[in-house]
Amino acid sequence: MSSRSLDELIAALKCLPGVGQKSAQRMALYLLERDQAGARRLADGIVDALDKVRHCDQCRNFSDQPRCAICTDPARDQATICVVETPADVIAVESSAAFRGRYFVLLGRLSPLDGLGPEQLGLDDLEQQLGRGDIDEIIIATSATVEGDITAQYIADHAAKHGIRTSRLARGIPIGGELEFVDSGTLSRALSGRQRFE
Amino acid sequence: MSSRSLDELIAALKCLPGVGQKSAQRMALYLLERDQAGARRLADGIVDALDKVRHCDQCRNFSDQPRCAICTDPARDQATICVVETPADVIAVESSAAFRGRYFVLLGRLSPLDGLGPEQLGLDDLEQQLGRGDIDEIIIATSATVEGDITAQYIADHAAKHGIRTSRLARGIPIGGELEFVDSGTLSRALSGRQRFE
Repeated sequence: MSSRSLDELIAALKCLPGVGQKSAQRMALYLLERDQAGARRLADGIVDALDKVRHCDQCRNFSDQPRCAICTDPARDQATICVVETPADVIAVESSAAFRGRYFVLLGRLSPLDGLGPEQLGLDDLEQQLGRGDIDEIIIATSATVEGDITAQYIADHAAKHGIRTSRLARGIPIGGELEFVDSGTLSRALSGRQRFE
Repeated sequence: MSSRSLDELIAALKCLPGVGQKSAQRMALYLLERDQAGARRLADGIVDALDKVRHCDQCRNFSDQPRCAICTDPARDQATICVVETPADVIAVESSAAFRGRYFVLLGRLSPLDGLGPEQLGLDDLEQQLGRGDIDEIIIATSATVEGDITAQYIADHAAKHGIRTSRLARGIPIGGELEFVDSGTLSRALSGRQRFE
């Protein structure tokens, strides 16, 4: 291009996930041609988030405060913890509106090859919270992968030591799923975990 | 979400073209979790571009300087002007590497209903440049739409007054285009504009 600042903006936009050269170019030209106010707001938003967002000291989710809004919400059941892998998982569970407890965010899953052990996932911290005696139930919502399952088993073992009720998300056929197109692993889990009509 | 700054960053990211709630969320979490240096660079890039990028006073393309790099490049043929609608079109023509002249960017096309007349497109400015007597040829590369064609005709009429050679981009079947899938309008133009074997 004929402008070095524009070239640099295009290069910088490529750090966004899913954005390549063409999209970055389109975004940069759009911001400069059509939405300079939006561009300014985006720059401020990034700087502000980088400065203010930290991890909640109880649940490890992103938060502006030392303790996040969910952990300090008196309307939520602080005795029930849902353990998830990432902040994105918290958003997903929140959008289901089916959970009114609080969270614990691992920020990963057990994967010794990647250097992710219990310490990196804050599991000693979780253990400490379980030991306080004010937790009734743990719902483990790690992902349905081998590492996710191992992480779930590890947490379940520790919760059992404290005599805390532990459950995990049901595995089965997704709502709207047609049997014909469900993979065999899921179908096998749905059969072995079949639920009785009540 | 549990963080107001994060919510604001997500909202701000939605100003980017083609980015909705889900992508914005993914981008914001990615920036905070994985690429804080990239995020800082992006914020700086936006602020820098907003501060420095202006329009070249000759060709109206984006430029950091009063006159852009193409207009001041002695290796380029300053006597040939390619007239395009947008800065993105300049990038497209440049990437073809088939043009070594300079550009004139209309930043739109004649569209009286949208309030875009000759004045908004800088056509009086172009007219003045044509009148200087140092332009040999104009290549009109407006888009192949009704407004683009009207804009092209308008410019061709003015160039004719100054006795300047004027041409437009060839219309026809795109490279790799299979006749079966080419639309009838394009096929009709390709027939009427058939080119003799040499």
